[in-house]
Amino acid sequence: MQENIQKIRSMIREIPNFPKDGILFRDITTALKDADTLKLTVDEIYEAFKDEKIDYIAGIESRGFIYGMPLAYKLGCGFIPVRKPNKLPAETISIEYELEYGTDKIEIHKDALKAGDRVLIVDDLLATGGTAAAACSLVSQVASVVGMAFVIELVDLKGKDKLPNDVKVVSLVKY
Amino acid sequence: MQENIQKIRSMIREIPNFPKDGILFRDITTALKDADTLKLTVDEIYEAFKDEKIDYIAGIESRGFIYGMPLAYKLGCGFIPVRKPNKLPAETISIEYELEYGTDKIEIHKDALKAGDRVLIVDDLLATGGTAAAACSLVSQVASVVGMAFVIELVDLKGKDKLPNDVKVVSLVKY
Repeated sequence: MQENIQKIRSMIREIPNFPKDGILFRDITTALKDADTLKLTVDEIYEAFKDEKIDYIAGIESRGFIYGMPLAYKLGCGFIPVRKPNKLPAETISIEYELEYGTDKIEIHKDALKAGDRVLIVDDLLATGGTAAAACSLVSQVASVVGMAFVIELVDLKGKDKLPNDVKVVSLVKY
Repeated sequence: MQENIQKIRSMIREIPNFPKDGILFRDITTALKDADTLKLTVDEIYEAFKDEKIDYIAGIESRGFIYGMPLAYKLGCGFIPVRKPNKLPAETISIEYELEYGTDKIEIHKDALKAGDRVLIVDDLLATGGTAAAACSLVSQVASVVGMAFVIELVDLKGKDKLPNDVKVVSLVKY
């Protein structure tokens, strides 16, 4: 609902020059602190995916954990953490992807998902799409990515163009 | 309920020699993957604190985010992330604490909490209690710590002894 999105948008704080000069950081902590906004945010994503027969939420470390878990709770499905290297204790599968400078890597447990599982990937922010696309490729190696949900999308960075066309992408607040 | 705790315990996986030789790691990812166990775990903590008039959940990075957020959603309260240094974008207050080797530091936003706020601190694991005690001291500088909730407690490490006597400490599965 447009009214709910406006409320969520109004609770996201702008912090200039973080994490470095020239970047306007969208701070979700103010939207988490407010109980009504927290609930609205989770409920809006829930509404978008409640009929998609989601088996698992895959949350991307660490702000994807924040929105992914209440969504898993509400959808009544399981939760799979997508983590940085050396955090998951059992055998993993991983994917490396390019950053502006250098590369990064994310992992899931090898036995976390299986063929046919319907997965919704969750993160707080869709920016250039590098991490999101990598998470999508990684999960797609073993299961089906049905959707991806973000609280914020920085539209000018065209991250959505990096995501597969057959995946339902929902971002609540667009800048 | 004892039956629920048994179910949660049965879904926590043991991984020998992680993160280093001689450590038996209690892996919660198997308890998160199973939708029923995820729900039970959140509901058990909810039952323990539902009458405590909690204003905010403070979740300790990053597995405290995992359990803290669905709890905030269910309690209808706000969520405050307790993070490692340089992750929070606005002005912070921080506390340094000792590890086995060296020190560590955690932070909250300076404007996250105010006097009189009733806070429940959440993490996945109570081990030696260093991080938990630090989080409790940090939050207590500005607000009231009403309780602390953990999914797992490693009883032999006596972490509970480091926590204040007037705080209600609940850990679901004890080893």
